[in-house]
Amino acid sequence: MMDGSLVDGGAGRRDAGRAVRTAARSGAHDTVTTGLAPGFVQANIVILPKAWAADFLLYCQRNGEACPVIAVAAAGDWTLPELGDDIDIRSDVPRYRVFRDGVCTDEPSDISELWRDDLVTFALGCSYSFEEALLQAGLRLQHIANDTKVPIYRTGIATAPAGAFSGPMIVSMRPFAPRDAIRAIQVTSRFPRVHGAPVHFGDPAMIGIPDIRTPWSGVEPEIRPGEVPLFWACGVTPQLAIEAAKPPFCITHKAGHMLVTDRLNAEFASF
Amino acid sequence: MMDGSLVDGGAGRRDAGRAVRTAARSGAHDTVTTGLAPGFVQANIVILPKAWAADFLLYCQRNGEACPVIAVAAAGDWTLPELGDDIDIRSDVPRYRVFRDGVCTDEPSDISELWRDDLVTFALGCSYSFEEALLQAGLRLQHIANDTKVPIYRTGIATAPAGAFSGPMIVSMRPFAPRDAIRAIQVTSRFPRVHGAPVHFGDPAMIGIPDIRTPWSGVEPEIRPGEVPLFWACGVTPQLAIEAAKPPFCITHKAGHMLVTDRLNAEFASF
Repeated sequence: MMDGSLVDGGAGRRDAGRAVRTAARSGAHDTVTTGLAPGFVQANIVILPKAWAADFLLYCQRNGEACPVIAVAAAGDWTLPELGDDIDIRSDVPRYRVFRDGVCTDEPSDISELWRDDLVTFALGCSYSFEEALLQAGLRLQHIANDTKVPIYRTGIATAPAGAFSGPMIVSMRPFAPRDAIRAIQVTSRFPRVHGAPVHFGDPAMIGIPDIRTPWSGVEPEIRPGEVPLFWACGVTPQLAIEAAKPPFCITHKAGHMLVTDRLNAEFASF
Repeated sequence: MMDGSLVDGGAGRRDAGRAVRTAARSGAHDTVTTGLAPGFVQANIVILPKAWAADFLLYCQRNGEACPVIAVAAAGDWTLPELGDDIDIRSDVPRYRVFRDGVCTDEPSDISELWRDDLVTFALGCSYSFEEALLQAGLRLQHIANDTKVPIYRTGIATAPAGAFSGPMIVSMRPFAPRDAIRAIQVTSRFPRVHGAPVHFGDPAMIGIPDIRTPWSGVEPEIRPGEVPLFWACGVTPQLAIEAAKPPFCITHKAGHMLVTDRLNAEFASF
């Protein structure tokens, strides 16, 4: 997959993902990865003890829109060859969150000293990939135009539980005029491994969102006249499920501090 | 394409399209083709003198969503081998409309005596194809559930003119709950040759429809609580453009009395 050659200017160098990981590994980069290595897939990371991994995998399988698994490592294995041939998951994420009994106890930039032979790494798709596809399709993303974080909402939609993992579906919202909304549905449908098509559009109350002006996270969104809100399942959903499950030990990436891979977003398009 | 074998029960016999045409040719069938030869593409037909054909083709090219051309015959040629290997367009449509200077003067079931060496036949895709795909995807079509005609509307969207051909875009409307609407957009996006994805959803006023309860044709639609109207470009659009252009001579199918072809709807899916 890696051949050292250049890809087109939009996607940057073929080794741009590796460059971000190398900087994260050395500690030179410990902040968000937003906008880095354009064209490359960034992944949400969840690391759980093997005793909890089967239930979490089942939870992801049952809630594929919110929890699209793109890679799972064997217990104790810190590599992820499907996503990059030199990944060391113990150091290549810029910043981690460490949970003990469901409570975040630390936010280190390296977890080598915490590694155990029973830890299973999950990589989940991230909406950065489909946002890139939306921008490349000529669509305007309001939160990017406004330089704000995408607004996310807690819905009244219950995810399908598995073992101790359960909770509400969390969604991100992006407003579009109807014609652009149709295009956005088409574009994101091509990317089922990074949340895919929206789960809802229009009336927020239909999915249990009482007031669109007050997101669960992010600032009040700007929705211009004639625009309709589109809601996509969000990768925060599994984070809430983990907090609810309270595994004795768990490590995730810190929000926005993703694993940058060597896979191109374009490789994830299903048609 | 024709091999005489059977296809699955849903699509019926491989020669079901030919059977309808044979009945139309003999005069045994001169009514609507709705529901006949399930699985097979039905086509709108426009027949124009060669002097008008280039402008009409350009009009269709510029307004592909409303006027998706699936076949054009050479001047004087009454066959359409791309759509069936024995089609005689002079007799195989159950009922025609004959226009002189833009006015309908007759509705015969055979046009053999009107045929001229300068006539050019156009076959345009029809929403029957994508409606079948929607039903096969498990979606409910309100007008079919209610046994009514699909409501169509005149919009404020001007088509791109070509020569004397111009006029408003006509749309058909089908209501869905948002989740089903997303699925309907996905399903119909697969069929660009039969109108493709909707051109609009939601507020009818945004496309110049003053009152959704009063369609331009069809009965007042039932839109259930929580449902959103989806609007697709409609094959009536070119009919209006022809009536506006007033060519000295023109023949079309009569509404609902389509050319049934040997092509499977499934062959028209783009992915």
